[in-house]
Amino acid sequence: MAETIEDLQLGELKLIQDTDAFRFGTDAVLLSDFAKTLPSKRTLDLCCGNGIVPILLSHKTKTPQICGLEIQPGAYSLACRSVALNRLEERISITLGDLKEAEQFYEVRSFDVITCNPPYMKKGAALANETDAKTIARHEVMCSLEDIIRTSARLLKQGGHLVMVHRPNRMAEVISLMREYRIEPKRLRMIHPSVTAEPTLFLIDGLLYGGSELRIMPPLILCGQDGGESEELKQIYGRR
Amino acid sequence: MAETIEDLQLGELKLIQDTDAFRFGTDAVLLSDFAKTLPSKRTLDLCCGNGIVPILLSHKTKTPQICGLEIQPGAYSLACRSVALNRLEERISITLGDLKEAEQFYEVRSFDVITCNPPYMKKGAALANETDAKTIARHEVMCSLEDIIRTSARLLKQGGHLVMVHRPNRMAEVISLMREYRIEPKRLRMIHPSVTAEPTLFLIDGLLYGGSELRIMPPLILCGQDGGESEELKQIYGRR
Repeated sequence: MAETIEDLQLGELKLIQDTDAFRFGTDAVLLSDFAKTLPSKRTLDLCCGNGIVPILLSHKTKTPQICGLEIQPGAYSLACRSVALNRLEERISITLGDLKEAEQFYEVRSFDVITCNPPYMKKGAALANETDAKTIARHEVMCSLEDIIRTSARLLKQGGHLVMVHRPNRMAEVISLMREYRIEPKRLRMIHPSVTAEPTLFLIDGLLYGGSELRIMPPLILCGQDGGESEELKQIYGRR
Repeated sequence: MAETIEDLQLGELKLIQDTDAFRFGTDAVLLSDFAKTLPSKRTLDLCCGNGIVPILLSHKTKTPQICGLEIQPGAYSLACRSVALNRLEERISITLGDLKEAEQFYEVRSFDVITCNPPYMKKGAALANETDAKTIARHEVMCSLEDIIRTSARLLKQGGHLVMVHRPNRMAEVISLMREYRIEPKRLRMIHPSVTAEPTLFLIDGLLYGGSELRIMPPLILCGQDGGESEELKQIYGRR
């Protein structure tokens, strides 16, 4: 196992990553950017991994209390050390545990915002190794989409928001499960590599006990006409 | 009441419209184009209005039997006369009736494809006149979204497709109602005036008893950079 310390190029923020485990991607950056406009006194990031979303949210918002829950000891340890490295212990607290038992760690109805960059793929029969850290981060081995949404519906305050990033092939499930648990999709954005390409990700913001009225935003296009990052993506990354 | 005969500029097709009633729009053109790739021996268009979608489908597909169901006598009469004007009586049959009682007119499990360009707006308390033809075409006065989806789930063959056009603010409802009635969204496309604008419509294709796996297509952009119709929209309109 080898570790790197990545400079996030946002203020002085740094992140410790394990070169053999799941490393943060554009998804986490887009998720935290999409969530940043929601006012929150207390935010929880489920499946927080190495802590990238809580750390980005500490920079992008004024939220005084940011929690992260992670089931894998290795990622949990990285997250705790990154929080310490950035001297964010007073704003961010990371917990090691199973989100299906989240009520052991957090009070119900106690969060304004819950974010989640979940495992994208269904638990498949053909997985080589269900204990592998990358497999757990990518496949629904330890928790399902429904577990995440059910837990969020319990932990959110009335009027709280669940904000997720996921793959388009799962969008119908995400939307109908959210509605089943009374989290009404209110804001949706598709992420496309280019304007002529199918989306690779989407962002969704659901309101607990909200009325049915969805706003779909203009597409977020990742690449500019020169093939590099689009202006909007540069802004999101803080590269201006 | 005044009527016009519109040249659809597709082959020799013409459509009789009532200048005081609901006139067909881009929605119907996009819907029939989106549905045309689905092989079908028997297609039903719910809320068929003046018959625009059945007539367009007769041109865009080889489907031998196309049915249209409409609840308003005025629109029904226009549709019947347009079918006759185009000499399409052998392929298109229009029925006057309530889709909530559709099983009186059609056998269950008898359609490969059902299309619908439904009333977009919820039944509102503030409607001036619930018997007005335009109100009925635009608001869920005579049928709800759930009525349409429930009826479709009964009339579609196993493996049949429900194809709809609707407004983005209703998309979460459309998706979760489809799934509730075991019509799995399989193909989705957002329609945007421009790449930087929010979508004004979306197209969705659901498969009865399909497995959960949604494909979201590249956005359909209506305006070109010169402000006129985009190349793709020209193609859809057959203007090349």
